[in-house]
Amino acid sequence: MSNMNRQIVLARLPQGKLAPEDFKLIDSAMPRAGEGEALVRTRYISLDAANRAWMQGATYRDALGAGTVMSGRAVGEVIESRHLNFRTGDLAFGDCGWQEYAAVPGQSLMKQSHVRPLSHLLSVYGVSGLTGYFGVLEVGRPKPGETFVISAAAGAVGSFAGQIANITGCRVVGIAGGDEKCRWLTEELGYDAAVNYKSGPISETLKAACPNGIDVYFDNVGGETFEAALAQMNLMGRIACCGVVSTYDAAAQPTHGPHGVPFLFVVKRLTMRGFIVSDFFAKRDEALAQLRSWVEEGQLKVIEDIVEGFENLPDALIGLLHGKNWGKRMVKIG
Amino acid sequence: MSNMNRQIVLARLPQGKLAPEDFKLIDSAMPRAGEGEALVRTRYISLDAANRAWMQGATYRDALGAGTVMSGRAVGEVIESRHLNFRTGDLAFGDCGWQEYAAVPGQSLMKQSHVRPLSHLLSVYGVSGLTGYFGVLEVGRPKPGETFVISAAAGAVGSFAGQIANITGCRVVGIAGGDEKCRWLTEELGYDAAVNYKSGPISETLKAACPNGIDVYFDNVGGETFEAALAQMNLMGRIACCGVVSTYDAAAQPTHGPHGVPFLFVVKRLTMRGFIVSDFFAKRDEALAQLRSWVEEGQLKVIEDIVEGFENLPDALIGLLHGKNWGKRMVKIG
Repeated sequence: MSNMNRQIVLARLPQGKLAPEDFKLIDSAMPRAGEGEALVRTRYISLDAANRAWMQGATYRDALGAGTVMSGRAVGEVIESRHLNFRTGDLAFGDCGWQEYAAVPGQSLMKQSHVRPLSHLLSVYGVSGLTGYFGVLEVGRPKPGETFVISAAAGAVGSFAGQIANITGCRVVGIAGGDEKCRWLTEELGYDAAVNYKSGPISETLKAACPNGIDVYFDNVGGETFEAALAQMNLMGRIACCGVVSTYDAAAQPTHGPHGVPFLFVVKRLTMRGFIVSDFFAKRDEALAQLRSWVEEGQLKVIEDIVEGFENLPDALIGLLHGKNWGKRMVKIG
Repeated sequence: MSNMNRQIVLARLPQGKLAPEDFKLIDSAMPRAGEGEALVRTRYISLDAANRAWMQGATYRDALGAGTVMSGRAVGEVIESRHLNFRTGDLAFGDCGWQEYAAVPGQSLMKQSHVRPLSHLLSVYGVSGLTGYFGVLEVGRPKPGETFVISAAAGAVGSFAGQIANITGCRVVGIAGGDEKCRWLTEELGYDAAVNYKSGPISETLKAACPNGIDVYFDNVGGETFEAALAQMNLMGRIACCGVVSTYDAAAQPTHGPHGVPFLFVVKRLTMRGFIVSDFFAKRDEALAQLRSWVEEGQLKVIEDIVEGFENLPDALIGLLHGKNWGKRMVKIG
């Protein structure tokens, strides 16, 4: 065991778009587990659009501040424990931050099963897979034959959510950036159609892809795409609000919202609900069992985008914010 | 029985704000009930902000066109019937239009109980009372102790919805135009607080009236008031979208929506749902029984604003669009 701990610090809050200079790699002393803590050796660090949102202010968690170790969810191995629930060799998930070793209060960690590959704990059996699962089945609640539209469809949550909607018997239309991704959505992930939002006005391309309107819209992006989808919603449609990635890395925040709110909600009797994965943790075991069964039967493909090397965390996150990832992006440590 | 039928025609679609010149009073021949129709003598004609929305285009019903009898819901007495479900002397509710006598397909009419006063069929036991009931109990779902905010609080739906929220044990904050109405809301209707949206920036006055934030917002108006309420919503808050009266009589429609959509929905995990009263008609009998019991026990005050005289329909509607009504406005015929 090394006696040094590499850490990446958020050197400053980003001015406009997130840049490599906003981070700094430092060497620190190896931490020890304090009373009630477990010492975790991080194995995979998850990259999420939410990482960027945390820099903007308080959300469902406190805002990030400059000068501290960058926050990030990770899965790792417990190498020392002073908490009753954990022992050496356990796998744990939690906000370990961008560092090779983290001393974390046991109550902030969730024990994980030993699965292979280990990376699945951050993808299909982690926040992404569960968010897709609950967002589709508990929030969007699509019925067979309905049109289900998902934005950031090739992303971590999107690639699971679209496939799950497909399993429920919907017509699935994915929105993504680039023709190559769109082809992949239909050919590899089984989506019924895909819309490249860079290929023309989204209000027109989306309408063309949804001749029967939209019954469920799973929103990961907000902005113009949200507005375009809202205009195409059918009577009694449902909108699941999962994230607003279009705004997280923007220099300025939008000064106003989408046209048609709240008017279209009355006329079409729409329901819209924002959620985060932990709202549904009471049903976590049931969800994990279902996801595992779909994966084992080959109905659900697990798309992972694994970047090697601790020092590549900043670039990997910046790339994700530019839509470079295919499926769940994470960094493999050591 | 006269052999003439006074009618008010929508002479033209309004240019900007609705004006008396948009209507024309004419005398027509007395109609007869055709096969499957009932001939109704209108007794009370309901005035609703929705009347104006119907002139803007298709909503949950077809748009109104110039040159036809103005649409309007009414309660009246069947004086001739060629429909199995109705006989002479029955009371009926339906879109009879702005006329003294209307021949209406029986399937478009709902039979009404004989209640006293008859006007209650258009207020507490009509669309307004039921909309308030379902909007609060089925859509907003407030819990005792929560803060419930309602806009157009002194209006037809608002005066019922606020009182019903009060009965469920909420802290009720009403938004209305004018100090006199606000005083009336707290002193007569039992609201805990009232905000005069004309007295200063609504974002500030509403915040001051809701020190613990807003758990349920019952929206009748849209626009700036909606935006101000959204910003004050608590975690897991609910928004019931009932109408958008701020836009119905506006010269131009808003080009964009409220700030914070969909971002705040994710951060605060809000649920928003648009509805119309007929979405809940399966529970209509239960609702009417509950409303009757509250009225008889004196827990629910029935506020009616009755204008006399058929020829006053246009002015009564224009006044309603300017917020002149207190409670449910209707015109008494004959």
